[in-house]
Amino acid sequence: MNNIVISALDDFRIELPSWGFADTGTRFGKFLQDSAASTIEEKFADASQVHLFTGACPTLALHVLWDVPDQQSLESVEALSQRYGIRPGSINPNVFQDQVYKHGSLANESAEIRRQALSHLLSCVETAKQLGCRDLAPWFADGSNYPGTANIRKRKQWMMEGLREMHNSLGADQRLLIEYKPFEPAFYHTDIADWGMAILIAKHAGVKAKVLVDTGHHYVSQNIEQIVAWLLSEGMLGGFHFNDRRYADDDLTLGSIDPYQIFRVFLEIRHFEWEANARADIAYMIDQSHNLKNKIEAMIQTVVTAQELYVKAALVNHEQLEHARSHHQLIDAENVLRDSFNTDVRPLIAEWRKARDLPADPLMAFRDSGYLSRVSAERRTRKKASGSYA
Amino acid sequence: MNNIVISALDDFRIELPSWGFADTGTRFGKFLQDSAASTIEEKFADASQVHLFTGACPTLALHVLWDVPDQQSLESVEALSQRYGIRPGSINPNVFQDQVYKHGSLANESAEIRRQALSHLLSCVETAKQLGCRDLAPWFADGSNYPGTANIRKRKQWMMEGLREMHNSLGADQRLLIEYKPFEPAFYHTDIADWGMAILIAKHAGVKAKVLVDTGHHYVSQNIEQIVAWLLSEGMLGGFHFNDRRYADDDLTLGSIDPYQIFRVFLEIRHFEWEANARADIAYMIDQSHNLKNKIEAMIQTVVTAQELYVKAALVNHEQLEHARSHHQLIDAENVLRDSFNTDVRPLIAEWRKARDLPADPLMAFRDSGYLSRVSAERRTRKKASGSYA
Amino acid sequence: MNNIVISALDDFRIELPSWGFADTGTRFGKFLQDSAASTIEEKFADASQVHLFTGACPTLALHVLWDVPDQQSLESVEALSQRYGIRPGSINPNVFQDQVYKHGSLANESAEIRRQALSHLLSCVETAKQLGCRDLAPWFADGSNYPGTANIRKRKQWMMEGLREMHNSLGADQRLLIEYKPFEPAFYHTDIADWGMAILIAKHAGVKAKVLVDTGHHYVSQNIEQIVAWLLSEGMLGGFHFNDRRYADDDLTLGSIDPYQIFRVFLEIRHFEWEANARADIAYMIDQSHNLKNKIEAMIQTVVTAQELYVKAALVNHEQLEHARSHHQLIDAENVLRDSFNTDVRPLIAEWRKARDLPADPLMAFRDSGYLSRVSAERRTRKKASGSYA
Amino acid sequence: MNNIVISALDDFRIELPSWGFADTGTRFGKFLQDSAASTIEEKFADASQVHLFTGACPTLALHVLWDVPDQQSLESVEALSQRYGIRPGSINPNVFQDQVYKHGSLANESAEIRRQALSHLLSCVETAKQLGCRDLAPWFADGSNYPGTANIRKRKQWMMEGLREMHNSLGADQRLLIEYKPFEPAFYHTDIADWGMAILIAKHAGVKAKVLVDTGHHYVSQNIEQIVAWLLSEGMLGGFHFNDRRYADDDLTLGSIDPYQIFRVFLEIRHFEWEANARADIAYMIDQSHNLKNKIEAMIQTVVTAQELYVKAALVNHEQLEHARSHHQLIDAENVLRDSFNTDVRPLIAEWRKARDLPADPLMAFRDSGYLSRVSAERRTRKKASGSYA
Repeated sequence: MNNIVISALDDFRIELPSWGFADTGTRFGKFLQDSAASTIEEKFADASQVHLFTGACPTLALHVLWDVPDQQSLESVEALSQRYGIRPGSINPNVFQDQVYKHGSLANESAEIRRQALSHLLSCVETAKQLGCRDLAPWFADGSNYPGTANIRKRKQWMMEGLREMHNSLGADQRLLIEYKPFEPAFYHTDIADWGMAILIAKHAGVKAKVLVDTGHHYVSQNIEQIVAWLLSEGMLGGFHFNDRRYADDDLTLGSIDPYQIFRVFLEIRHFEWEANARADIAYMIDQSHNLKNKIEAMIQTVVTAQELYVKAALVNHEQLEHARSHHQLIDAENVLRDSFNTDVRPLIAEWRKARDLPADPLMAFRDSGYLSRVSAERRTRKKASGSYA
Repeated sequence: MNNIVISALDDFRIELPSWGFADTGTRFGKFLQDSAASTIEEKFADASQVHLFTGACPTLALHVLWDVPDQQSLESVEALSQRYGIRPGSINPNVFQDQVYKHGSLANESAEIRRQALSHLLSCVETAKQLGCRDLAPWFADGSNYPGTANIRKRKQWMMEGLREMHNSLGADQRLLIEYKPFEPAFYHTDIADWGMAILIAKHAGVKAKVLVDTGHHYVSQNIEQIVAWLLSEGMLGGFHFNDRRYADDDLTLGSIDPYQIFRVFLEIRHFEWEANARADIAYMIDQSHNLKNKIEAMIQTVVTAQELYVKAALVNHEQLEHARSHHQLIDAENVLRDSFNTDVRPLIAEWRKARDLPADPLMAFRDSGYLSRVSAERRTRKKASGSYA
Repeated sequence: MNNIVISALDDFRIELPSWGFADTGTRFGKFLQDSAASTIEEKFADASQVHLFTGACPTLALHVLWDVPDQQSLESVEALSQRYGIRPGSINPNVFQDQVYKHGSLANESAEIRRQALSHLLSCVETAKQLGCRDLAPWFADGSNYPGTANIRKRKQWMMEGLREMHNSLGADQRLLIEYKPFEPAFYHTDIADWGMAILIAKHAGVKAKVLVDTGHHYVSQNIEQIVAWLLSEGMLGGFHFNDRRYADDDLTLGSIDPYQIFRVFLEIRHFEWEANARADIAYMIDQSHNLKNKIEAMIQTVVTAQELYVKAALVNHEQLEHARSHHQLIDAENVLRDSFNTDVRPLIAEWRKARDLPADPLMAFRDSGYLSRVSAERRTRKKASGSYA
Repeated sequence: MNNIVISALDDFRIELPSWGFADTGTRFGKFLQDSAASTIEEKFADASQVHLFTGACPTLALHVLWDVPDQQSLESVEALSQRYGIRPGSINPNVFQDQVYKHGSLANESAEIRRQALSHLLSCVETAKQLGCRDLAPWFADGSNYPGTANIRKRKQWMMEGLREMHNSLGADQRLLIEYKPFEPAFYHTDIADWGMAILIAKHAGVKAKVLVDTGHHYVSQNIEQIVAWLLSEGMLGGFHFNDRRYADDDLTLGSIDPYQIFRVFLEIRHFEWEANARADIAYMIDQSHNLKNKIEAMIQTVVTAQELYVKAALVNHEQLEHARSHHQLIDAENVLRDSFNTDVRPLIAEWRKARDLPADPLMAFRDSGYLSRVSAERRTRKKASGSYA
């Protein structure tokens, strides 16, 4: 067995998003799935299936407002975590859904609304502490739709102040991950629009603040792996929200549109680690919503794809690569990448799975398990009974 | 008074969308407005306000599923139209919302679902005939999210066949307007993605089929006025869905992001008409959803902006323009446009309004009317009573 | 040996561009290579090397103005073709370089310049007839840089008339390939900007006119394989200019940025051919300029990449794909593609090469041949002597 | 007369680029103009014409390699400056044209080439000191064309080190302006690709380093005025290279594609200055190349457009704007902008010109002067004589 592959796969962990198991949609509507999870327990149950068959997903990202809105749900988490064998992971606040946030949260012109948002963020830090979670991953929809309607500099200042306060409430081992996004739902300006804004805010917030890269949150054509390289070089890369897209923030399954790009992102990290001779401290997380694919199957497909692309990156010969680069041998350097990318790593990964008592084909094994038809039937019945189902 | 301005404004009519008065949002949520319309009557009422103060909006586009889902609502339209002084305009089918359309409507792999979609489209033609409406404006969300999951050529064929059938059911004076859109809600491929696909489909459907240009439905950087010029040249321009955007299909108010572009679109039309010495047969319609601005005010602002940009285009000296063009005098040709665009047409339009017994400042006049606070109060009370309000 | 692979590789032919062996650059300058070809003989010689080691490039595209500007050079082609074992392929006119074309060629406001352009195009048809070449591949830089400076509809008409005349001069077996490009060197509007314009022009020109898809000539995010599918469905796909890009028309080596996309383009074609049970009549051509990579090596790398991606597409199980599509089994359909794409086809291709007496690794074999150092020395000396070298 | 307008126009200075008067083109060729400047004297002469008729351009940016390549040309500058009444402005190094820079300059893998680049940059600082110029404006083409061929983090480090050295050689009053650009001529990664990279490099270099915003160097859809606002807020906005574009870095004349955007950029600055009650220290410079328009006329048109858009921004009522913003009155805030943008400021500017003894219509006055036909004739003759003219 290839030791690099084994060690890469043993190390590679990717977090599942609780919201990826629930019904989601576009502004034009939702296509409902019988098996979609409605409760935090169902999300833990579904996530544990993904982990069961892939062995790579020991944590579940929680969305505070939807998953642990009250003390009772919060207290249930430990029991669910025990029952389903999956730990709560990053904690995701919500300061975009409430009607008061129509014009922003931490960057709102109203001091009262800013306080309300900060209060929610601080309570999320408390939630994270209670659950033993390390990473806070707030996403801000703050922005404006029309030229002239916002004082961009003031809003920057408010955002910076709020996030510094949030940072200062963190526990010793906690981190604040600052996410950026160019647009949607704000259509003219978004207060944290790109990685440059995110890194300035993170540096202002304090040493526990890092940048979160959502692969779908870039301008078309933007070089994501270069941003990853810069963040690594600055010691500011905190983690990823993985997904793929062709146009906007489409939240498609990872590697479905441009697998070579994700490979290159992993390569930047592996190359950094090779030079540093140490693992980078990066939280790999999935952030996708599967409108058309079955949610659990899509998640398994995503994890398998992530493993494949990560292993391909792990196979890159870094010495050869640096040698070619330092001699400006472009074709040779490029071919080092392509040789790894073109390698069929599926047999190597199947071998590792076997050694780790995992099914060789996680998707097939999940399908054979009968889980999907069972929960589809159960949940359909319950949704109908509760009237939550059209 | 300037005769060109008077005649331009007398001629210029722009249709309001019923859905622009209702609560809408993004996939992240809706921000509700007390005054948002819930019923077809409220939509007629609100639209009639816009027409009352601008004098430019004698018709209201109807969305079949939302506005006239049954015989009763259909029969109410004539009375509403009389009461509010505004006629039903284009008829907009809906084959994207029902759960069966998860994988498409007319382009669905399932013959049964294709029939269901066609049946709805044909019934919309009937609705239009009953209401005396000329234009059918179906929009298709059909497409796919992942490479390989759709047989693009088969779907093209099904779409073409369905629309030919729809076309053949049209009355003598009716038109079928084919709209295109590159993405959203489909994120990998959309069956009618660009104007090239739309014109091929329209030509296949028959002589009453034309292309509908939604200004928000283009790739970034795409030259919309060139598409307009080509459609005019081919005799295939049927109408517009007007809005503005910066990134995707953001549905912002017209001219809010790039007013010079809309001016150029109008100019292509005016120049065509100048050469043809006749009015082009084009349906100008608004398709916007106002998440943050008040809906009626935003609509008035839009109509006023459209009038201003249309009048600027009307002021262009076509002889001078052609003279400069034919001599490759680039700066002079460009300056013909810029002189018109830079002209402050607001006083000219105010004069026309006065002559037509309209308020000089429609937005101020509407605000002074007290309509908004009255319906806000009424509708808030009713929504609360009916429990439709969170 | 895998019969599908053998037959796919035996069939797959890709044409080399003569200009890809000469020094080229960006508007900021050229980086010169000693080995760059200066004469038509050197281009034939270099191209024959690519064919020698890959066995896939029996033809060389000629650029009329640069390669066969006069009767003498024209007459030399047959001898060169014999000597170097590679046939002249598509004929590429040039109506963009001469100073008279500052404001366009066939679409110029000046009837005289339009005639001059047409005259060149017609003489290119004659050249093609003399050389026994089938495809005429004119590219038009026609367009404008500033709003208002061009009458788009008139220019469309002139372009259509000119190309119909050119079409009518074609021999019985010749074809006219209409290429589109959204921008560069024209920065406001390009007269043939997208595939929709190209197909309308081609249909107007006549039955021997088809559309040429240059993979670098699209808006960012545009779905190229969908355009390919539509053109196939309309019987209007004539050929390709292959290259890759990230931003604009960067002319990078094929598959260097997004290999999965080129795979999908090939898949659309293979799937069409599987349904039709016949080969599509498509000219595969490379159109790249290698500023930084060695030109011959880059061309070999490109051909090898094209073969790999074509074979991957050939491996797709079309029955399985259609079955999954017709049942809306999205993940299964997608995985049919991914299974083929993830297969390491290099050993299969190496086997085919062996069977065809070709080197297993064309690039290494070329490097071992010593050709590059030999011609570098010769050409450097000659360029210095002639003073054409800075 | 309007005092705001007078004071705005008295303050507004915009620098001309020497290279904007010379023949330039695209990679497909140059369209030559008889009147194009070839020598530094001709550039001074042409620039002085623009200043003569607009009164707004007292300085001329110099491109070291092209304008002052040797001691002699350097020594001539003072005399030219006296003769033509225009001072040398920013100093622009060139580390992209020489063959050694094929793979980069300050970020090159070769220490020797990095030293060569640094040496040129340091000599440019000396040149600037000698000429009494304040701003150094280096632009780096450094980057790579293919994935994997560059160690992005190493190159970042080298770039940072080099620019810190350059910074440390600056005189007390000098500034180093760091420009960013997403692509071209590098097509895969550019070492200083966006404002985030530029600000990190500038902060690392030292307090005299600021960011230079070239309006054409952004991803499509990117919000330039937001970047301007952030840079102002961070005290890091050094200056502008003004131009317009639709697709890539098209270098079109300012405001020709999207005048409302440039207005918003000016507005961000004016609003900042209103709050600070002080002028921001910003170098306004033009960076355009006019392939099709006459170069001097295009420059006059640009300056006039810049004045118009600047005056429109100056007319904005900042109190009203802030009031509407702070109450989330979106339409009202937006209309504050639109009222200013829609105002026809040409008569106001004509009045100012009259008061400053400038012609009311600079372009017409220049045309009437006969300068163009005179220099066209002279230069054509000289170019033909010298054989530099095809």
